Amino acid sequence: MPTILGQNQYGKAENRVVKITRDGDTHHIKDLNVSIALSGDMEDVHYSGSNANVLPTDTTKNTVYAFAKEYGIASAEQFGIHLARHFVNSQEPIHRARIRIEEYGWERIETSESGSRFIGADEVKHSFVRKGQETRLTQITYDGERWEVISGLKDLVVMNSTNSEFWGYVKDKYTTLPEAYDRILATQVAGRWRFNWTDDTQRAPQWEKSYAQVRKHMLQAFAETYSLSLQQTMYQMGSRIINHRSEIDEVRFSLPNKHHFLVDLEPFGLKNDNEVYYAADRPYGLIEATILRDGCEAHIPQDLTNL
Amino acid sequence: MPTILGQNQYGKAENRVVKITRDGDTHHIKDLNVSIALSGDMEDVHYSGSNANVLPTDTTKNTVYAFAKEYGIASAEQFGIHLARHFVNSQEPIHRARIRIEEYGWERIETSESGSRFIGADEVKHSFVRKGQETRLTQITYDGERWEVISGLKDLVVMNSTNSEFWGYVKDKYTTLPEAYDRILATQVAGRWRFNWTDDTQRAPQWEKSYAQVRKHMLQAFAETYSLSLQQTMYQMGSRIINHRSEIDEVRFSLPNKHHFLVDLEPFGLKNDNEVYYAADRPYGLIEATILRDGCEAHIPQDLTNL
Amino acid sequence: MPTILGQNQYGKAENRVVKITRDGDTHHIKDLNVSIALSGDMEDVHYSGSNANVLPTDTTKNTVYAFAKEYGIASAEQFGIHLARHFVNSQEPIHRARIRIEEYGWERIETSESGSRFIGADEVKHSFVRKGQETRLTQITYDGERWEVISGLKDLVVMNSTNSEFWGYVKDKYTTLPEAYDRILATQVAGRWRFNWTDDTQRAPQWEKSYAQVRKHMLQAFAETYSLSLQQTMYQMGSRIINHRSEIDEVRFSLPNKHHFLVDLEPFGLKNDNEVYYAADRPYGLIEATILRDGCEAHIPQDLTNL
Amino acid sequence: MPTILGQNQYGKAENRVVKITRDGDTHHIKDLNVSIALSGDMEDVHYSGSNANVLPTDTTKNTVYAFAKEYGIASAEQFGIHLARHFVNSQEPIHRARIRIEEYGWERIETSESGSRFIGADEVKHSFVRKGQETRLTQITYDGERWEVISGLKDLVVMNSTNSEFWGYVKDKYTTLPEAYDRILATQVAGRWRFNWTDDTQRAPQWEKSYAQVRKHMLQAFAETYSLSLQQTMYQMGSRIINHRSEIDEVRFSLPNKHHFLVDLEPFGLKNDNEVYYAADRPYGLIEATILRDGCEAHIPQDLTNL
Repeated sequence: MPTILGQNQYGKAENRVVKITRDGDTHHIKDLNVSIALSGDMEDVHYSGSNANVLPTDTTKNTVYAFAKEYGIASAEQFGIHLARHFVNSQEPIHRARIRIEEYGWERIETSESGSRFIGADEVKHSFVRKGQETRLTQITYDGERWEVISGLKDLVVMNSTNSEFWGYVKDKYTTLPEAYDRILATQVAGRWRFNWTDDTQRAPQWEKSYAQVRKHMLQAFAETYSLSLQQTMYQMGSRIINHRSEIDEVRFSLPNKHHFLVDLEPFGLKNDNEVYYAADRPYGLIEATILRDGCEAHIPQDLTNL
Repeated sequence: MPTILGQNQYGKAENRVVKITRDGDTHHIKDLNVSIALSGDMEDVHYSGSNANVLPTDTTKNTVYAFAKEYGIASAEQFGIHLARHFVNSQEPIHRARIRIEEYGWERIETSESGSRFIGADEVKHSFVRKGQETRLTQITYDGERWEVISGLKDLVVMNSTNSEFWGYVKDKYTTLPEAYDRILATQVAGRWRFNWTDDTQRAPQWEKSYAQVRKHMLQAFAETYSLSLQQTMYQMGSRIINHRSEIDEVRFSLPNKHHFLVDLEPFGLKNDNEVYYAADRPYGLIEATILRDGCEAHIPQDLTNL
Repeated sequence: MPTILGQNQYGKAENRVVKITRDGDTHHIKDLNVSIALSGDMEDVHYSGSNANVLPTDTTKNTVYAFAKEYGIASAEQFGIHLARHFVNSQEPIHRARIRIEEYGWERIETSESGSRFIGADEVKHSFVRKGQETRLTQITYDGERWEVISGLKDLVVMNSTNSEFWGYVKDKYTTLPEAYDRILATQVAGRWRFNWTDDTQRAPQWEKSYAQVRKHMLQAFAETYSLSLQQTMYQMGSRIINHRSEIDEVRFSLPNKHHFLVDLEPFGLKNDNEVYYAADRPYGLIEATILRDGCEAHIPQDLTNL
Repeated sequence: MPTILGQNQYGKAENRVVKITRDGDTHHIKDLNVSIALSGDMEDVHYSGSNANVLPTDTTKNTVYAFAKEYGIASAEQFGIHLARHFVNSQEPIHRARIRIEEYGWERIETSESGSRFIGADEVKHSFVRKGQETRLTQITYDGERWEVISGLKDLVVMNSTNSEFWGYVKDKYTTLPEAYDRILATQVAGRWRFNWTDDTQRAPQWEKSYAQVRKHMLQAFAETYSLSLQQTMYQMGSRIINHRSEIDEVRFSLPNKHHFLVDLEPFGLKNDNEVYYAADRPYGLIEATILRDGCEAHIPQDLTNL
């Protein structure tokens, strides 16, 4: 046979599961999009079409819904761990499971200040509005022995309206960009961070608290860094996470430089004193890097966005 | 000539303008997407290609940026009024201007609790994160005499996890749906509301305050209505707006019923006690209506979403 | 009651139906996305939540699938007519049905030139690749007496790399655009055309042939018009349709001017002789008009794209 | 320093360039979206914000446009090779360049059969309609010594309406799927293939011809394989490419199983004889694999879609 099979995986992608937990009248939501990828002894199905080792993708979907009932969803990370362990441990031909989860946040709708005319204010403990800001992410990989947990987020858009400069760069024959001493710095954060928890015998991180703290440190580093380049700001964001969160050894960012160009108003007899900007779509600078705890190895895939 | 020209309009669409206003160290953002549509004596350009009456769309773009400097952006509505008035009053062939604006909200990034190690906390008065929830909308139309202002929003996703039923409906030979006595009700709100301000001699509404209040009443009506149908909830949302906001005479909604189907867990020996749902994409119910102040006429176009 | 109900409609949107017709070994595909909107005696469901007049949207979905079997899908238009007639005629409270359909085209995969080594070439009469060019559209409206059929398309991207000029336009204080004597003209066509068939006693148009012919004349008019403005080209496109197709009385277009800007290469010591262009995203000119057969009234909604 | 910098890269992404080549009256289009990623001695800009080694992303954009003039665009691959060589060879701190390109296809508009009434038929040699089917892709990587060229495509949607089965799979307690002996098999192909050309001293492949041939063999393998699983079909697609194209050593696919579910029409007294299908959106099976020429190593990244 002149061709052979290389790395392969399969499973059901984008299983949308919403779990409602009732604490008396107060409801809680977990809203996930779960994708399963399984690998193992799968030569036959590729070479001959024999499905003797294939657990159907439809079954992996059913398992997501059944597990939401059986185990609940304490966090996306914990839920992914249950799923990955199940597939590897229960299916002889499956040697590795990778669970990817997107999580959408919700917050409660504030109710009428002074008692609704319609129904009691306590009733609205079941009413929610989707936050709509970043999408939270996690990826759980399990090979029967070790865990790799990489969490993160995407689509978090941030802007500093000052305290950003860009000058002192290389100039070649194709360089026309003027130096900037006070510019807008804006980006749409895609980030991932890898936990150093790898073994069931270790104490697991507090997944929900960890996410909130990482997000906070990352945003503060963005806000508080006086920026000479987006690379410098990005490094501060990653470094701040690792310095404050001992459970994390590695961070990777993919940061588009969402250009805001100062509009030339001189043709209209007006002076644009860093007031009026054109927010451009394409092209955009794309700045990507891994930031590591000293002594640790990099494992997060480099290509977060395929751009 | 066997064919004639009917209604027509032209202009530059999707001009992205970001305006930074500096109040000492504290910055404020307005982030708009402005689309211009002009109508008037435009037969020649269609019949012969003569541009003698055509103000270039590029000029309408320039005007957006120049006006952001000249007039500032107190609100999307006020900015649209300046633009519409300008095009109709300054260009003889232009008889009508329609300005559509999308507005993206931003909130401040919270800074380090107790003084940053990097720079002073007061510096971060220029750091923002995009809200990412609904997109605010307005449409200003001016014909040289009267104004029509229709504001609204899109992409605001809301959910009630209980207090929704659906039963007692018509059954024909194609009906298989079982009645529901406790279901999730979720939708992605697209709404528009028309102001009764039409004349420069009237006192104009407080555009920013009006938006915040309409949004609040709409969300509260959604949360507080015990729902027997999405139509009923929608009517309450519109009615609540009109009853609380005297500046508004008409509301229109286009509400997709974002179905959350209870997953059948019985094949796995599990009981699903309104806990585990599958969030479906397509198809979806689409519920649309106009709600009017009694005695007023409807002017909001019926087709908000082209779905 | 201080508020009243205005125009309203409801139904299941985006029902994706694929119909395979087998002509011996040769298969044929119809691939549709069907949206239903019903109106009538619907006050109660809005005011009180009584569903006594409400045929569930789920039932309208079931009807789409059942009718694909019962009637087949000779064309999107014919299929929509069956559906609209059914809802209005079979449901007392329903007075008007509007059926919107998107259709996705497929073409056959070409097979091995000289007999496959795998299986017989005749087998591949069931293999297709999606065309992926325009999406075909139709909208059928029926009130129990008269029909309105508006067909069209969207997302058909066309370009002339020369034979387009733009000059002789109005210049005001905000005008900076230089005149152009040889530019690229490109657009993404959104078009609708209304048939003059309104009554079951008239002979119905040949829907499939009509679509192919309209598309052909529209593209040829785009290609063959030496353009002094996009408005002129647009008018020619509509006029050509009406002049060649007696079944059509009205056309409406919404044409974004997909700007291709000549890149300034002089800073690099290069001359750009209409060779290298930057294809911009936003903003863009948006040119819209209705073209009518003389003596006919306009009925196509003006807002095809909500931009 | 407790944190260190890992892999990093930067550049301008999504530079949209359209190149018109004039062969007398006959024009030719190349329509590309070019993304640049550069790596090298970039510690300083991350640690301190010094841009002394940073060629601005804006300059990389300018280079794309200048090179379109200087070198033309014979193929996306050849154009990417020019760019990658330039950045690595001309900039001391740059050690590696990765150029990603999307290409959009265009075809000529057919003109009036028998001489236009408007202008001569030869004029329309400059009129095009965008193909809109797959997007062609390539990625060029150069480190100053060796080349890696990975080409591919995305968004090519294909369907077999019969000759697909799925049975004989593993059943566990969460399995409810019935076996299928005649189903629709449809997917949206994302594929990449790696050339074994790595060195300037080797004769380069004919990039345009290679693409056309790979696409043909891939489609034919899809059409001609009697499928017992999507994995089997995928393997045939990759194997056919490698067997027919000696310039390619490795193929990777990411194939969503675009489910078409047979609709249960029995509640309506109808029999669905493989005629009426519901085309589902989410979830979907996702089947991914690498197919290699025997003896070759895998280099294509596993994560083509980030799903």
